[in-house]
Amino acid sequence: MNKPDWIGAEIDEARLRIWAMAGPTPVHAAETTLGGATPAATASTLGQAVIEALGTRLPGDRTLPVVACGLAPARGAAGFRPVPCTPLGDTLRPAPLRDLRLSLHLVPGLSQAQPTDAMLGAETRIAGFLARNPGWDGVLCLPGAQSRWVHLSAGEVVSFQTFLTGALTALLEGHSILRDSVSGWEDAAFVDGVRAGMERPERLAARLFTLHAEALIQGQPPAGGRARLSGLLIGAELAAAKPYWLGQRVAVLGAPSLAEQYARALADLAVPTSTCDDTEMTLAGLARARALIAPGPAPGTAH
Amino acid sequence: MNKPDWIGAEIDEARLRIWAMAGPTPVHAAETTLGGATPAATASTLGQAVIEALGTRLPGDRTLPVVACGLAPARGAAGFRPVPCTPLGDTLRPAPLRDLRLSLHLVPGLSQAQPTDAMLGAETRIAGFLARNPGWDGVLCLPGAQSRWVHLSAGEVVSFQTFLTGALTALLEGHSILRDSVSGWEDAAFVDGVRAGMERPERLAARLFTLHAEALIQGQPPAGGRARLSGLLIGAELAAAKPYWLGQRVAVLGAPSLAEQYARALADLAVPTSTCDDTEMTLAGLARARALIAPGPAPGTAH
Repeated sequence: MNKPDWIGAEIDEARLRIWAMAGPTPVHAAETTLGGATPAATASTLGQAVIEALGTRLPGDRTLPVVACGLAPARGAAGFRPVPCTPLGDTLRPAPLRDLRLSLHLVPGLSQAQPTDAMLGAETRIAGFLARNPGWDGVLCLPGAQSRWVHLSAGEVVSFQTFLTGALTALLEGHSILRDSVSGWEDAAFVDGVRAGMERPERLAARLFTLHAEALIQGQPPAGGRARLSGLLIGAELAAAKPYWLGQRVAVLGAPSLAEQYARALADLAVPTSTCDDTEMTLAGLARARALIAPGPAPGTAH
Repeated sequence: MNKPDWIGAEIDEARLRIWAMAGPTPVHAAETTLGGATPAATASTLGQAVIEALGTRLPGDRTLPVVACGLAPARGAAGFRPVPCTPLGDTLRPAPLRDLRLSLHLVPGLSQAQPTDAMLGAETRIAGFLARNPGWDGVLCLPGAQSRWVHLSAGEVVSFQTFLTGALTALLEGHSILRDSVSGWEDAAFVDGVRAGMERPERLAARLFTLHAEALIQGQPPAGGRARLSGLLIGAELAAAKPYWLGQRVAVLGAPSLAEQYARALADLAVPTSTCDDTEMTLAGLARARALIAPGPAPGTAH
């Protein structure tokens, strides 16, 4: 196995993902949390988590760079680059770290003034997609806890819009009265939900309760309830994101099962799509970011 | 203090409320939970909770009737009466209880076939409202974790529609990334949210994220964020409930602060409203239901 020469990290609300990288190739992957990661998490918390996750895999004789994207430590307005701009820019932001085994470099997020919007992590996936598809112009859809629609042109993010769709779906499935009412996947229920959500998005809160009422009265969850719930929420998003997808070809970057839902919904609107795995794009983007680190002390001279 | 001669109870997802009643007057109130009340909670669980809550306030020499509405034990299709119908009907459903100190009588919920809908508890508040406002025809709005719009005519519930608005708002405020981004109440932000939610309900998930993006970029929560969040969700509901309120006078039955939000939003639409406290209506409705209990053994003969 190749020795790692740098480390990639992605932090979101749910988890911290860490990859020990040898050039462009991950040689070890780990997943942990920062204990409820927030933008206020400190650099040393992140450094400690990386050391705990990789332990003896770290070389003892030199400093490895950690390239981190997402909810990285000590954000604020300074942590964002305003669009239109390239997804990565020219420099990373070094963050102070006491441990000599690591140096920490943060990928800035992107911000948008009107309508106010922000991304922390998606810019890296977008950079990875562009690295794999040079010269690609068009629309990206990045579903997840937050889903983003991104207009790319000439290598720049021109505009984007973020929806809380995935987080809402998860809250309703896991923490609302619907938790016992929605289960089961049926493709027809999903497509029906998407159409209903697009056509009458104002009825969302009523249609959600309908799923519960059916379970109450019939004594069992309605067939395909989870598919319908997801469809209703994605449908409303698609109605709002129409300026992004109308007449376009859309590349969907996401976890395979969720990306498939968006591709299915877009197919119903006769929008051609391609899908690709978001982890692969994150790694490609982190590798691109790693190339931006200014040359430091030569290996072996850090101590 | 008058001795209680019956007990009223209301069970919802969050709590079990119990009142020791002397005729129409509450002489003691208690609040507890059924440990995650579900329609499957048993009658004996409810009986036990009442006994724990009232203890020595129960007379030792006779059986007190408990009139319970809401998520009462052992529901299912049999626990609902289909609309159109009066809110209470002619009989309660007795539930078996081993403890001789109590007899348990359940208020049936109401169901609607098209669109599928159900209420468990609201029918009692509606009955209370009608008891206080005999002959009242028109529209009721009952906000809460679930908000309901009800068309009343000639003493009957003609149709109704339930929205998950309040529960969604609470989930977003308490359990989403917005928990640190929304705080503060500003009336202007609320009205602005209502208008935005009504006009473009499909943008809900995007506008929710905007609140978070503002907090991320500015480093502090946007002014009146909680008011805007609530307004966005109520606005979408009002767009969908338009057939209920358009050209009508609306009575809003709810907890005072929430009822006030709905009244404020409806005032912005030039819809005249009156508000009344939902606990008062629940008690009036339970008293009405208590009168339906078939005469049982005379007091003192239960043992």
